[in-house]
This record gives sequence, structure tokens and C-alpha cells, in this order.
Amino acid sequence: MRLIENWFSERYSENLQLSFRVMDQLLSVKTDFQRIDVFETYDFGKLLSIDGTVQLTEKDEFVYHEMITRVPYFMASRKPRSALIIGGGDGGAAREFLKLGLERITNVEIDSQVVEVSRKFFPSLASSFSDSRVTLIIGDGAEFLKENRDKFDIIIVDSTDPVGPAEVLFHKEFYNSVKKALSKDGIIVTQSGSPFYQPNGLKLAYNGMKEVFRNVSVYTAFIPTYPSGFWSFTMGSDSPLSARGDEVDPGKYFNARVLEGAFSLPQFVYELISG
Amino acid sequence: MRLIENWFSERYSENLQLSFRVMDQLLSVKTDFQRIDVFETYDFGKLLSIDGTVQLTEKDEFVYHEMITRVPYFMASRKPRSALIIGGGDGGAAREFLKLGLERITNVEIDSQVVEVSRKFFPSLASSFSDSRVTLIIGDGAEFLKENRDKFDIIIVDSTDPVGPAEVLFHKEFYNSVKKALSKDGIIVTQSGSPFYQPNGLKLAYNGMKEVFRNVSVYTAFIPTYPSGFWSFTMGSDSPLSARGDEVDPGKYFNARVLEGAFSLPQFVYELISG
Repeated sequence: MRLIENWFSERYSENLQLSFRVMDQLLSVKTDFQRIDVFETYDFGKLLSIDGTVQLTEKDEFVYHEMITRVPYFMASRKPRSALIIGGGDGGAAREFLKLGLERITNVEIDSQVVEVSRKFFPSLASSFSDSRVTLIIGDGAEFLKENRDKFDIIIVDSTDPVGPAEVLFHKEFYNSVKKALSKDGIIVTQSGSPFYQPNGLKLAYNGMKEVFRNVSVYTAFIPTYPSGFWSFTMGSDSPLSARGDEVDPGKYFNARVLEGAFSLPQFVYELISG
Repeated sequence: MRLIENWFSERYSENLQLSFRVMDQLLSVKTDFQRIDVFETYDFGKLLSIDGTVQLTEKDEFVYHEMITRVPYFMASRKPRSALIIGGGDGGAAREFLKLGLERITNVEIDSQVVEVSRKFFPSLASSFSDSRVTLIIGDGAEFLKENRDKFDIIIVDSTDPVGPAEVLFHKEFYNSVKKALSKDGIIVTQSGSPFYQPNGLKLAYNGMKEVFRNVSVYTAFIPTYPSGFWSFTMGSDSPLSARGDEVDPGKYFNARVLEGAFSLPQFVYELISG
């Protein structure tokens, strides 16, 4: 990743980019799967980029990690006790599940270097991997599910966007293998991109899940350092989804009202997934 | 506004900027109040900038203009018939009020050049000024309210941010004069900036309104081309606010669920205005 006069820019398209002024480039490494960069920025603390795309910054990662874990946790009809994380090699999702008191967390990350980088530069996320309740597996999430015989109350897909190595994680075949690994009343959530800049990612996830699960819902959150600042998550279950809002302790973004309000989709998003 | 290799950049801080690639700079003019620029962009159609800050783009202006008009319209206990717009010289807010069937709209814009520029480059917004139900006044909104004897069901402050000429529009004294111009059950809404990058603008609006109105609420919307993509609006009234959701026709962003969900504030925003 080449910096221009100490600015790191993420291109949202040929014609739009968000740029962060950086103090230092702490790492740039090409792994078997992707390019990983770490920058020390002025306004957002450390920033992790994969293939030129912001994955997280220290300042606003709380939004993504709270929303991908707490929403399914509090939408389950009974209190979840186990979770499978596909991706999530930074450790942020596992950290949030630990906070929620889960007893058993399996985290399958395809790229060992993401874990190593996070251990070195983002210890407040990666320290979750040292907890005895977390089992870290380096491997392909789709392959893992083919062999797996365990059941999980929540499965989340905390992957890069549906181009490149993560594409398979947005298809019906994958959701079928997810379904076999879910316990009764289990819930899957995947990050599904910016409805504004990546409408096809959201449609892919929604339509794929619709073919496999009885109930599918989309919710959104504000994530300042992701394209458009507006991010979607897609949730599926064969059981009815209803909020256990009275049990909620607020996070930094999440609270009982957000648990309800996040499902209020702007009309253009509603039409995107209905059409 | 100087372009660097055909990119227009809005600096959100010294260390962060969003950049649009532009085909052409259509206008750059220094008025008595501010600098106005119009660009033809690749991805967002025409873009209006004031003092280097994006005011609107053709592609996403619908979010801001729907949310600043329809939310107060459908939160009023009885159907509003008149509105006062302070600012809004582009005509977008007046256009939305016309769609809602208001009978009398007064629009007070301080800078005649904003109106002229919008008439020339954004006719789909400024054409609202040709409607007989709209009275356009070029003048200072705060001064207008001192002399005004009319009553309005809705007053909106569709201004630039609380630095520069618009600052006075975020203070208690201004809200007191607004209150005198509101009819019984009347509602005021002001745009109140990005809770993420401009927390003080939101606090200023919220605290100022709290001193003057019995009920004050904050709601938010996703606006891709505004800083962080996450925008706040602050609403005040002496009457109870409750949604008339059953009367809603969806817009492109707004719908009955958004009318409720927009008030579900992330925890850090809730703490910002409570603290």
C-alpha cells in the first residue's frame, strides 16, 4: 500500500475516496490470501486495512463488533451459550461474545497472519483468543462446516466483502451448511456491506439466506470509517426472531432502543431486498 | 475552491477527508456571506458546496430533505398546514413540504446567491420557489422572526453548520423567538450536525432547545456525503410528540418504520445529549 504524502486512501469507487492522514505505516505484508496494512492514524488510532479496505480502526470498531454480536444475542428466543465466528481474525467479535457471557466460542479464521497482526497491534481485540472459552482454528470456514458435528446457538460471518476469498460465504450452499450447525432456535448473522455502494452484496446475502431460512431480517448501523458510513447485517433463523430488550445492558453503540430501531430500514433498502 | 487533479475534497478535520472526482467545476463565487461552488461529479451528479462543505448532491439530497420535513410533519398531533423554513435556499425543503400538501410555506434565506445558484443548477429543487404556496424572502432568519406576527405549524432550520453566519440559529434566544412564531402544537426541527465529528453542534442545539421547549427529541439519518455519513436533527415542541405513522406514504428514504426507528439513538449519542 503506497501512501501519498502520508495519506491512506480507501477508494470507494473510481470517483470517491476517504483519506486518513497517518503518522506511520506500521506494517505492510502480503499473505497467501491478501495484503494486510496497519497504519497509525491521527484521528482514529490504529487502522487495519485488508486489500486497501478499512477493516477496523481503534476509534470506531466498537460499532461493528457490538452490532454483529449483540443483535443476534438479544434476538434469540432463549439465551445463547455458544457461538461460531467465521472470519473475525482480529478477535473483536470473540471479545464481545465473551462480554456477553458465552460459554463456548469457536473462531475459524482463514488467514493466520490476520491473527498475528491483531495480536501485535490490536491486543485489546486479540486478547480474546487467550481466553479458555475461545477455540481458535486457522482454516477455511466453509470447509470447517463440512466436517463439523457441533451445534452453535449463534453463527456469525465476520468476513471481508463478497469479492475475493469471502465470496463463497454469501451463497446458498454455505447457508445450508450453516443451518446444519445451528442448534434449535439458532441464528446466523452476516455482515452484508453498504446498501448504498454495494447493494449487490446485500441482495446476495438476503436472497441466499431466504432460500434456506424461514425468517430473514436486515438491520443497519452507522460505521463512520466504512463506505458511506452506513452498514448492513443480514440475519436468518428458522425460529421466530423477537427482541429480549429488557435484558440489555448498553454498550457504547448498542442499547435496547437500537435493538429495535436497527431493523427500521430506509425505504430504498427495503425496496432493494424486496425487489 | 482549488481542485487537485480534478478531485474536490471536503476536509472533515486536519486528518480526514472525503474526495469526489469531478468532471467540471460549474461555478465558484464569493458572495457577501460565503463561497459557493458547484461541481459536476461522476458518481453523485451535481454537488453544491458552501465554504468547502458539501450541502447537497443530486444523488443523495433526498435523505436530508425528506428527513427534515416529513419527520416533524408526521410527529405533529394534528396535520400541519403551514411551515417556515429558515435557510433552505436551495429549495429542497420547500419542495418536500409542497409534496406533503402544505398550504402556506415561507422560506427565509439570507443569501440570494444560494437561490440563484440553485435556480440555475438544481432546478428540481428550486422550482418549488415558483409555486404560489411558497413565499421566498431574502433576509436574516433571526431578524425575520423578531418582526414576524404569523404563526406556523412547523419551523425548520435548514442552515449551514453552527460556525459562521448560522451560529445564532443554535442559541436559546433564537429558539425563544421561534417559539413565539409556532402555532399551538407547533414543532421546530433543526439540522444539528454529525454526532460523531461535531458533537458540540448537537449539544448546542439540544441544550438550547431544552431551555425553551417542554419536549425535545433527537433523531438521525444516514447521509452518505455528509461527514461520517451519520446526521442528527433536533426537534422541539411544547406539545407531546407522537407519530402519525398510519398516514405515511413512503418516500425514497422515509417510511413509517423510519419515523419510529430514527429516534433510536446509539448509546454514545444518548450519553452525549444526556451528559
